[in-house]
Amino acid sequence: MFPRPSGVVTLTTDFGTDDPYVGIMKGALLRASPKVQCVDLCHAVAPQDVATGAFVLWSAIGRFALGTVHVAVVDPGVGTGRRLLAAAAHECYWLAPDNGLLGGVLGGDGVQEVRMLDLPHLGIAPESNTFHGRDVLAPVAAWLAGGRYGFSAMGPRVADVAVGAAPLAGERRIVYVDRFGNAISNLGAAEVRGARAVRVGGVEVPLRRTYGDVAAGECLAYVGSFGLVEIGVNGGSAARGLGLAVGAGVQVVSA
Amino acid sequence: MFPRPSGVVTLTTDFGTDDPYVGIMKGALLRASPKVQCVDLCHAVAPQDVATGAFVLWSAIGRFALGTVHVAVVDPGVGTGRRLLAAAAHECYWLAPDNGLLGGVLGGDGVQEVRMLDLPHLGIAPESNTFHGRDVLAPVAAWLAGGRYGFSAMGPRVADVAVGAAPLAGERRIVYVDRFGNAISNLGAAEVRGARAVRVGGVEVPLRRTYGDVAAGECLAYVGSFGLVEIGVNGGSAARGLGLAVGAGVQVVSA
Amino acid sequence: MFPRPSGVVTLTTDFGTDDPYVGIMKGALLRASPKVQCVDLCHAVAPQDVATGAFVLWSAIGRFALGTVHVAVVDPGVGTGRRLLAAAAHECYWLAPDNGLLGGVLGGDGVQEVRMLDLPHLGIAPESNTFHGRDVLAPVAAWLAGGRYGFSAMGPRVADVAVGAAPLAGERRIVYVDRFGNAISNLGAAEVRGARAVRVGGVEVPLRRTYGDVAAGECLAYVGSFGLVEIGVNGGSAARGLGLAVGAGVQVVSA
Repeated sequence: MFPRPSGVVTLTTDFGTDDPYVGIMKGALLRASPKVQCVDLCHAVAPQDVATGAFVLWSAIGRFALGTVHVAVVDPGVGTGRRLLAAAAHECYWLAPDNGLLGGVLGGDGVQEVRMLDLPHLGIAPESNTFHGRDVLAPVAAWLAGGRYGFSAMGPRVADVAVGAAPLAGERRIVYVDRFGNAISNLGAAEVRGARAVRVGGVEVPLRRTYGDVAAGECLAYVGSFGLVEIGVNGGSAARGLGLAVGAGVQVVSA
Repeated sequence: MFPRPSGVVTLTTDFGTDDPYVGIMKGALLRASPKVQCVDLCHAVAPQDVATGAFVLWSAIGRFALGTVHVAVVDPGVGTGRRLLAAAAHECYWLAPDNGLLGGVLGGDGVQEVRMLDLPHLGIAPESNTFHGRDVLAPVAAWLAGGRYGFSAMGPRVADVAVGAAPLAGERRIVYVDRFGNAISNLGAAEVRGARAVRVGGVEVPLRRTYGDVAAGECLAYVGSFGLVEIGVNGGSAARGLGLAVGAGVQVVSA
Repeated sequence: MFPRPSGVVTLTTDFGTDDPYVGIMKGALLRASPKVQCVDLCHAVAPQDVATGAFVLWSAIGRFALGTVHVAVVDPGVGTGRRLLAAAAHECYWLAPDNGLLGGVLGGDGVQEVRMLDLPHLGIAPESNTFHGRDVLAPVAAWLAGGRYGFSAMGPRVADVAVGAAPLAGERRIVYVDRFGNAISNLGAAEVRGARAVRVGGVEVPLRRTYGDVAAGECLAYVGSFGLVEIGVNGGSAARGLGLAVGAGVQVVSA
């Protein structure tokens, strides 16, 4: 059994919000299914930065109603032979190109089924070679979300999908930096249980519960809202203060 | 017969998204018609840049459900005697000041009727002299979208509207640059049929189908998602790479 | 009697729009109440800038349907003992930390009742120590907006709330600068009735009705859309032209 659609579609892209592309995708969604509700998850993924897009999508797991349709467009291969995928996973639906963007969603447990979109079967002949978010993913998401098609109608099942570098796999490092300058690592909460600090950017940062547990301007490490260890500064930017960027190594310091 | 309202209202402004102005316009819309769905088309039009606003509005033609109400506010003449227009065109409704912002929408075929808003007749006395998007266009859009008033109730028909420099008219040039650095020209697909390349910024750029048809870092020209010829770079920015900006001339190079 | 919920929830935060935090808050809202409509009021409040957040919230008074739920998250004390407030005021509901963010909403007339959220009573155990917007305010807002809980169920009444520096109180000064470079003061319209000009940044700026009443490039003062005196430049930026920033003093010049 696949989850019943919630009627909500989220959008994650590298389009930014300066151009009309996101609005035009929503036009295509609402044309195909007038009652669907669109939520912007993130449009600030850097152009073609599939790894960050994969982290953002991963961050939505468990955060939306069952049966929400998550659409992601970071698609340097648009118009070539690359496949478009539909996944049923974590009680939601996920639509994205087969380029690793679904790495965080498909890289672990909770995956029910993955299919590739069969465009002729779905009656879709993309109008452009460069905007399949509008021409393919938007109407398909709207049909899924509005109940016109079930997940099984998306196309044939596939097994060999590109999960790319799953955002949380591999060596312990900073995987995301947010607008506050908090540097989010791929260390899970369990990995720092009983630890005293983490070492990052050449300094040892004490583990605390929340910002207010250190003085203003002081660094701390804490288990953040993603369930991952973050490096922050009370009232400031850890990224700026410690010179942290995506990829910086992180080690646990035992008590 | 005018199209039945779709219940969707799009917003195009030069407000940016740092201030509460867009949210306050949506408050006025939802106060007037609680069931209306608002879609942001673009708020990044540079302050008072009517020509770019006109291009953005043009790009929405055919992209939204029939009966969608498109509202545009790039309005340097706010509070003076300039008229506010309502147009029925391309199976949708369009509300904007009479300053050329509707140039792309009204400049060709598909125009059914243009009226000027009759504020006393609509029962509107603007609360401010500087924010008619909130005081006039938002409630009127909500009434149109929600079905409280039909298009004929907007005000008297007018013939002499300011279409300004229609965004796609005139010499062949770059008319828009997007966040990826793709430079969009006003050359239509038909104008490059059988051609080999376009000349822009002093170089000849080969015509291809999509980004993946050239090596990473290479320039290409292609018919983009607007149906217009664009100059792009596979995995990069043509605007930066070739120094292209709005206004740069473009010529077709025959095969 | 408290106002009937309108079904609309507005969001004001210092999250920016580059990260998925706003989208994740909306996920929590829609999970708790699928029919609620979310409107972004402002996410560009500078990190931890409670005063600007308070001005933005104040600007929403009277602009949304009765019974709208306004949620604000500028929350440097997240995870510490600071209280979260629910207010019924100005015919709407307001949810925010007790740190002055509601100063503009609660600082004058129109306040019906203020309560503090009783999390155990509401059945909420925050999942994180750093994102109570998602863990607490989003579901509570959804329950209020969707009618699952009435305002009286929020928690006990409180009297001693932090109204902080109410955004419009105190000496006459610039309190906000918008993207156009308009500098908004806390001078009300009544304070300049019959006046000739205002003095700001060392110059005297004439009072006019709207931008078009002065030549292009000229400064003017006018009663803006907030009902406050603003300093602007026709077709330009007063903030840049006159070097105005938040805090600059403003005096009325009599006729």
